[in-house]
Amino acid sequence: MNMIKGGVTAAQGFKAASCEANIKYKNRTDMAMVFSEAPCVSAGTFTSNVVKAACVQWDQKVVASNAPVHAVVINSGIANACTGKEGFDACEATAKAVEAMLNVPYAGVAVASTGVIGMQLPVEKLENGVRMMAGTLSDTIEAGTDASHAIMTTDTVNKEYAVTFEAGGKTVTLGGMSKGSGMIHPNMCTMLGFLTTDLNIEKQLLQEALSAVIKDTFNMITVDGDTSTNDTLLLLANGLAGNEKITKKNEDYAAFYTALDCVCRYLARRMASDGEGATKLFEAKVVNAKTKEDARTLARAIVGSNLSKAAIYGCDANFGRFLCAMGYSGSLFDQNDVELFFESKAGRLEVFDHGVPLDFDEEFAVRIMKESEVTVFVDMHEGNEEAAAWGCDLTYDYVKINADYRS
Amino acid sequence: MNMIKGGVTAAQGFKAASCEANIKYKNRTDMAMVFSEAPCVSAGTFTSNVVKAACVQWDQKVVASNAPVHAVVINSGIANACTGKEGFDACEATAKAVEAMLNVPYAGVAVASTGVIGMQLPVEKLENGVRMMAGTLSDTIEAGTDASHAIMTTDTVNKEYAVTFEAGGKTVTLGGMSKGSGMIHPNMCTMLGFLTTDLNIEKQLLQEALSAVIKDTFNMITVDGDTSTNDTLLLLANGLAGNEKITKKNEDYAAFYTALDCVCRYLARRMASDGEGATKLFEAKVVNAKTKEDARTLARAIVGSNLSKAAIYGCDANFGRFLCAMGYSGSLFDQNDVELFFESKAGRLEVFDHGVPLDFDEEFAVRIMKESEVTVFVDMHEGNEEAAAWGCDLTYDYVKINADYRS
Repeated sequence: MNMIKGGVTAAQGFKAASCEANIKYKNRTDMAMVFSEAPCVSAGTFTSNVVKAACVQWDQKVVASNAPVHAVVINSGIANACTGKEGFDACEATAKAVEAMLNVPYAGVAVASTGVIGMQLPVEKLENGVRMMAGTLSDTIEAGTDASHAIMTTDTVNKEYAVTFEAGGKTVTLGGMSKGSGMIHPNMCTMLGFLTTDLNIEKQLLQEALSAVIKDTFNMITVDGDTSTNDTLLLLANGLAGNEKITKKNEDYAAFYTALDCVCRYLARRMASDGEGATKLFEAKVVNAKTKEDARTLARAIVGSNLSKAAIYGCDANFGRFLCAMGYSGSLFDQNDVELFFESKAGRLEVFDHGVPLDFDEEFAVRIMKESEVTVFVDMHEGNEEAAAWGCDLTYDYVKINADYRS
Repeated sequence: MNMIKGGVTAAQGFKAASCEANIKYKNRTDMAMVFSEAPCVSAGTFTSNVVKAACVQWDQKVVASNAPVHAVVINSGIANACTGKEGFDACEATAKAVEAMLNVPYAGVAVASTGVIGMQLPVEKLENGVRMMAGTLSDTIEAGTDASHAIMTTDTVNKEYAVTFEAGGKTVTLGGMSKGSGMIHPNMCTMLGFLTTDLNIEKQLLQEALSAVIKDTFNMITVDGDTSTNDTLLLLANGLAGNEKITKKNEDYAAFYTALDCVCRYLARRMASDGEGATKLFEAKVVNAKTKEDARTLARAIVGSNLSKAAIYGCDANFGRFLCAMGYSGSLFDQNDVELFFESKAGRLEVFDHGVPLDFDEEFAVRIMKESEVTVFVDMHEGNEEAAAWGCDLTYDYVKINADYRS
């Protein structure tokens, strides 16, 4: 597997475009489209929030149907959540605008939105946006990068990644982009993420791979514990790599799975480190847990705790907060089995050993925690399972961003 | 039922003391004792966190035994959590110091701690503290108030309350104090709370009443979603009011239950409004839910969301965040049934009606939200059950308090 430059346009046959549609933001791009003339099989995972945005409900229908998918249209600024029938109609109007311009069935057009909840989308501006973008679709790397910028809200950096791998003697490409900075606590999926590949694969296996990979990638990040109404991760495969169609879990499937895990892991970590107001990537690694689910639960609780996150911001090796978070996570364990370390580029330091706090070098602890990526490493000594979770620190800027009017 | 002045010393036969033991804080009182020469039946609820502080484990044994309880000794500054056997020994040493000074069995002495986790308590200072306090025990209102100050950590105000009620022709008094400002997300109980009454009642009924009342009081508050290692709520009843002993759920039990609910509700709300960094009490009222548990879950999710809390701080009527939090709470409902209002002294404003966002007067919304107590009122239109939950806003000061070194 090789990392290559690019994102959603890296794979053969995928084009992208973006434009200034003035949905809510001014003087910046706020719509993007991903398009494949070759029909795609699709897979998707969506928010578990029962208050689902209109676009999530639309996309669930698109992915559940066997209709080939050709396009995804995304807007940033208004989330189209809590918008009733009018919101659902806006999805349909957007898809129909794509049909009119690009001659593909509107039932194969996915839509996604991010931004403020409880506000209606301006349908004419969306339709204008689709018309502008239909004329400027391009398969260049730059077009993909531009799209990854257009879908940003409070994000401070764009997120895209691409890799190639071998399947059936053919070189296959997988790329993607994602966005997300606040209201990030994915459950069954993540904020907006769009992955494209020229792999030839059966729809059911595509979905199976995506559903498995998110468990250790997008579902292991949190910024603020708030599971969004709009979380959507879509994966489109148009088959243009020409590999023999993957219909079972063979070697080719394994190669694809590894590549998918790699791309999702990169995008997920990048979302966590760009959490609203964040100054650091905060990682928790839990090893030797009783079960995989225990390892995941404990790791997520550590990076999800407001008090842990504030300690990471303050470079305070206040390890009791991490143990406290593990304790209320819902996972059962004995504190007398636990070892806890702080880790970063600057070194590694044990602070708690089998139920007993250690005397440790506070200055060294501060040096470790001042790095831009800080890991809390926990050895449970209760089994063989491990997991990692990613979050960020809790800062003044998080409060500032979210106390500001209608962000 | 009448509200009266005082706290833990309001009921007959209860004395209190406090002192500067220099556990961790300097130049302020940091130890308190509550004492009843008459033996008490006890009830308690404790943290559900599996990482339980040594003092919680000690008190669970005290309450579970049938030994009469005479005293509670509390220190603020060090939590005595994650401290192994040495921590448990510190509890025993404290209880034995009470036995030596006051001639009551050490098995009937409860202890409680709050402060930094993962640090050992200085046993000699604790024992000195007990000796100092044993000589200054007093049944005055002031002694109780001083005790309620000594147990504060990041609290900015003390919390105490007392009421009288009639049982079996006798006037019974119930009073209490509590503390808690951060790491507040009680589950099965709360932060430190101590209630005293001169009621004559069977131990089992005392526990039953306490366990029931906390479900709608202390368990309905949150400051930061972090369930502490030390949550402890103790209720002591010494029987000195002289009422006929309550042995079944009769009229007297009902009067006591109402008084207990009133005291717990007051203390819980006061803890929420004094959350770390808080500028406001943030209340969620959910009515017409399908089940009581749905109502509680929804109300707790609203006041627990970081994004909701930041919106309350910013006086931003960004109602989508409240609906989003309800959506990921785990309670199932249809957003098309929901009505949502903002309420405060300044007025009441509907912003969302059966799935549809309303056009509303933004200036009026800001006026409502600028008050020191703001309510999000939600009508589910799905049943007859209701619940309220209390939290506070998320502010710069919360981050400041918790990013500071080892708070």
